[in-house]
Amino acid sequence: MSLLKIALAQMRVIPGQPSKNFSTIERMVKEAKSSQVDLIVFPELAITGYLIGDQFLDNEWVDFAVSFNEKIRALSTDIIIVWGNVVTLGDNPTITNNDSRLAKLNAALIAYQGEFAVRKNGLFPGVYPKRLFPNYRIFDDQRYFLPGRELEEKLGLKVKSLLQPFEINYRNKLIRFGLEVCEDMWDDAYGFSPSDIYLSQHVDLLINISSSPWTLNKEHSRRDVIEKHAHVPFLFVNKVGADNNGKNVVLFEGGSMVFNQEGRWIGSANEVAKEELFIHDLVTEKHAQPPENKLYDMLLAAIRYTDEQLFQSRLPWIVGLSGGIDSAVSSALVVDALGPHRLQAYTLPTQYNSQTTLENAQKIAQNLGISITTIPIQAMVDAFNAIQPNASLLTKENIQARVRGSVLMNIAADQGGIVLNNGNKIEIALGYTTLYGDTIGALAPLGDLTKVQITELARYINERHQKEVIPHNLIPTWKNHIPHFEMPPSAELKSNQVDPMKWGYHDWLIHELLSFPSLAPERILSMYLDKTFPDEVTALIHHYGLNNPETFIQDLEWVLTLWNRSYFKRVQMPPNIIVSKGAFGYDYREAQMPYEKTARYLELKTKILSLKN
Amino acid sequence: MSLLKIALAQMRVIPGQPSKNFSTIERMVKEAKSSQVDLIVFPELAITGYLIGDQFLDNEWVDFAVSFNEKIRALSTDIIIVWGNVVTLGDNPTITNNDSRLAKLNAALIAYQGEFAVRKNGLFPGVYPKRLFPNYRIFDDQRYFLPGRELEEKLGLKVKSLLQPFEINYRNKLIRFGLEVCEDMWDDAYGFSPSDIYLSQHVDLLINISSSPWTLNKEHSRRDVIEKHAHVPFLFVNKVGADNNGKNVVLFEGGSMVFNQEGRWIGSANEVAKEELFIHDLVTEKHAQPPENKLYDMLLAAIRYTDEQLFQSRLPWIVGLSGGIDSAVSSALVVDALGPHRLQAYTLPTQYNSQTTLENAQKIAQNLGISITTIPIQAMVDAFNAIQPNASLLTKENIQARVRGSVLMNIAADQGGIVLNNGNKIEIALGYTTLYGDTIGALAPLGDLTKVQITELARYINERHQKEVIPHNLIPTWKNHIPHFEMPPSAELKSNQVDPMKWGYHDWLIHELLSFPSLAPERILSMYLDKTFPDEVTALIHHYGLNNPETFIQDLEWVLTLWNRSYFKRVQMPPNIIVSKGAFGYDYREAQMPYEKTARYLELKTKILSLKN
Repeated sequence: MSLLKIALAQMRVIPGQPSKNFSTIERMVKEAKSSQVDLIVFPELAITGYLIGDQFLDNEWVDFAVSFNEKIRALSTDIIIVWGNVVTLGDNPTITNNDSRLAKLNAALIAYQGEFAVRKNGLFPGVYPKRLFPNYRIFDDQRYFLPGRELEEKLGLKVKSLLQPFEINYRNKLIRFGLEVCEDMWDDAYGFSPSDIYLSQHVDLLINISSSPWTLNKEHSRRDVIEKHAHVPFLFVNKVGADNNGKNVVLFEGGSMVFNQEGRWIGSANEVAKEELFIHDLVTEKHAQPPENKLYDMLLAAIRYTDEQLFQSRLPWIVGLSGGIDSAVSSALVVDALGPHRLQAYTLPTQYNSQTTLENAQKIAQNLGISITTIPIQAMVDAFNAIQPNASLLTKENIQARVRGSVLMNIAADQGGIVLNNGNKIEIALGYTTLYGDTIGALAPLGDLTKVQITELARYINERHQKEVIPHNLIPTWKNHIPHFEMPPSAELKSNQVDPMKWGYHDWLIHELLSFPSLAPERILSMYLDKTFPDEVTALIHHYGLNNPETFIQDLEWVLTLWNRSYFKRVQMPPNIIVSKGAFGYDYREAQMPYEKTARYLELKTKILSLKN
Repeated sequence: MSLLKIALAQMRVIPGQPSKNFSTIERMVKEAKSSQVDLIVFPELAITGYLIGDQFLDNEWVDFAVSFNEKIRALSTDIIIVWGNVVTLGDNPTITNNDSRLAKLNAALIAYQGEFAVRKNGLFPGVYPKRLFPNYRIFDDQRYFLPGRELEEKLGLKVKSLLQPFEINYRNKLIRFGLEVCEDMWDDAYGFSPSDIYLSQHVDLLINISSSPWTLNKEHSRRDVIEKHAHVPFLFVNKVGADNNGKNVVLFEGGSMVFNQEGRWIGSANEVAKEELFIHDLVTEKHAQPPENKLYDMLLAAIRYTDEQLFQSRLPWIVGLSGGIDSAVSSALVVDALGPHRLQAYTLPTQYNSQTTLENAQKIAQNLGISITTIPIQAMVDAFNAIQPNASLLTKENIQARVRGSVLMNIAADQGGIVLNNGNKIEIALGYTTLYGDTIGALAPLGDLTKVQITELARYINERHQKEVIPHNLIPTWKNHIPHFEMPPSAELKSNQVDPMKWGYHDWLIHELLSFPSLAPERILSMYLDKTFPDEVTALIHHYGLNNPETFIQDLEWVLTLWNRSYFKRVQMPPNIIVSKGAFGYDYREAQMPYEKTARYLELKTKILSLKN
């Protein structure tokens, strides 16, 4: 093969901005050419963005995006370019999507010397349509695109004919390219492997262009999947940036990789969640330094991208600093991402806020170098209480939370600012929130993090800053798997209030119930009966007295009931940043309905309750 | 064919409640047997509900739902039963969904004399897997189910082998049944027609079981689609009830129909959005009376179902009665659906509320027979204003709206009640709302209605009640396509405020831009250039001075900009009731991003601006 230098264009794709994205492509091609690169590869849907929702249903807009394919083709003098973009069937107006809308392909394209590369069979010059469609989690590919194989059928083509490699005569040598798009390499469950089909046709190079979202530890599974297939050089190019469907901010961290002709991983782009033109010779090993704390880096990146894309990096962020750990950590993230000048803290005390909490709030603001303003809210709370003098205690708590929410929103309104939401996944799961009180805001950076993850993040932030940014009294110490809080988490809406969560255990439980693939509660009951909980969970179960069967069932049903009941709150919350394999929002798609427990659930429950205590 | 009597079991399916739904099936089978019915047909997913989201990813729960298939089969002594439910591949554990989750079929099942009916080829006794999957609008079939044809492939079966008819020897005559599920009959764009394939195999009867949502005028398109195919008796059975994904309430109105052996429509169930066992002889014409105002009936049904399913028909509904038309109409709908004792009105005046408005609010409550409480909110507003003495006028408006929102929520919290949202589609599109102010609540009955539709509904409500329920001064009169308001709609948050919408024109524009299939704004520009607006729109354009090119463009861009910018508000709103072919929420799936205007848009815009005024 005569390719000496390849460039993985791990570009930042800005959703909804074809011209800007084309400029990036133009610039990177130029840079690659000046480095004598032979082949440059851009990610999936590099012109439009990926999770842009029903913008893909606007035919005119799609045609506009498609028009950039000609412009990219024209850049391919003396360099082979592979890129992802939408393709429509201009010449086949009779072929529609199954919903009778315009047929669109999520395609990989390839051009050289101003011409689209061709397959032996001459079909669709330069265009490879994505074949395997993810239809789980946040993905909706089938809603917008026609998969390669349905296209073959609709056109009466032989199956796999669009999986013939592209051939390019490059410096007098023929190179055979196998192109695939993202999910095409995750072929385990499809009973159909584009990679294998390419390999059986003796391609010289496999190229996967992706918009593959980051979740914790995803990079490992990507490498495993590729090494399973690759017996030829393999290029994996993933975009960076953030798509935002309004319910979830989906981060793309890049992680572009090169595998050599034995299919062994020999290099990764250096930058994480940053644009990079990674140039490689397909031989030399180039291993990037793994980040110290990827979760932290990714949250910062997601905040930065959101701020840039939606708020032009200039609106003030407003946070209610309660003095508790959640608002402290989410403030620290915003400050580390955007700088202290971008965040304004407000502390909104009532009689129920302890002295320690108030001091904590001041200390946190000072540590972060942000302004803090104290606005006592008792006057407003009193005004509301006056119209409901006999309100329940819970209503009185709600009143305080809503006054805080309103004050923050009113301040934001007046400044043209954005309110930061500090909710964590556990309280969101249980609905331990006041709707329009602490559920408000434009972004929930911690919305897909358990409390345990937040406390770990707090510790890391202090470590990284080499000082006490998050007060030590907020961070639990762990002994034999049990968290010990100096100040147990509290909403401080009444006297001596402490959050009802069983920290550690509920974190595990909710994460477990929500992870992909989903676990039914029956699994948890079986673990109890079979004593197959992980050790740390067993320790927590004992610690919280849940080794008593009745208490265990009671607690589990408390969690399940609140979870189900509080969907009406979640659906009205701002987008969270996806971290896990099961985030609330558009990832885990709920329905508003009480659901019947299964016969097996009831059977297992009866079995547990009949156990001797 | 020896079928003399058939029963279309237009059952109420309660999402998430397998046992309750099975009881309904049991009861209806019994009733049918006592009427000597030969064949009874239940709708799609009659055990689980249809739009139940990721509940379908809970394998244990799905297995529980599947277990009812055996129970229904056992009911089939002396009657042929056709029903819809999930089927899993118990015997083929190696076949998974493409996401590696449990493979699930959205199936039609058929049994007689306690046995599943069989096909000649013996495959999958009694089970027909849905083949055509809607992957547009609110539908996510591909996310949960394996379509029939992928199943054939994964099992290495011949294409269409699962489209062989089922054969039942009924009273010594062989009857050949063609079963299909919902979308299977909407085959226009798929290039594949299950109905035609059945017909080519000489079936005696085609049966379509559906969970087909209601939208305005959908019944007509259903009839057209069926009459196109049916050259044998055709049964269409649709469920009644409401599924609720948290963003949209999706209503199912039934509309079950019978077509005779010439394929001509000969009867429809009488009830609309009500359970009915419609018994028919396949010969006699039985045409139901069409409802007087289907939109009104459907909104009432959706409110009733929601109230029953989520609030056990007993929680108090709370409404803020402004004295304007939206809150008046949404209150009237709730009262007509649930009775006056279920709704409490509050009027929350400030200095900006006109005397007429205040009187209107009292009058509306009196007309509806509901309690009304006046809570002046100035004290609370003052308390908020005190901490922002120099706030902008807009912030001051927001403060009032949020105080109202908080008061209503606090009252609801104290009573365990539900707040009614009164937003209409036009203000939701434009974000002419205060987040956490008037965007609050548990249900937005008018959220998919234009202002024009709401005024029509107001007129109908008065007609129906034969008295002035909605004050006449709120209902515009139309002359030559132009609405004339005695009291122009106003948020009354400052002096002499009037809503900035161009009523009539913006209603049309937003409806047009959001309808399926989606129209790009370029279409609107072309209509302007080509003078192809409908007459009534042309009249409105003149009325509002938009025949001036600059004003026209300015107004269009005002709409587009606000629409795009206000998604952050919409995504935090309560579910609306779907009425149109493009509702905000889970139907029209937006992304949070500013998007670039197309080159063609800019070109058309330039053309318009160069027109002589």
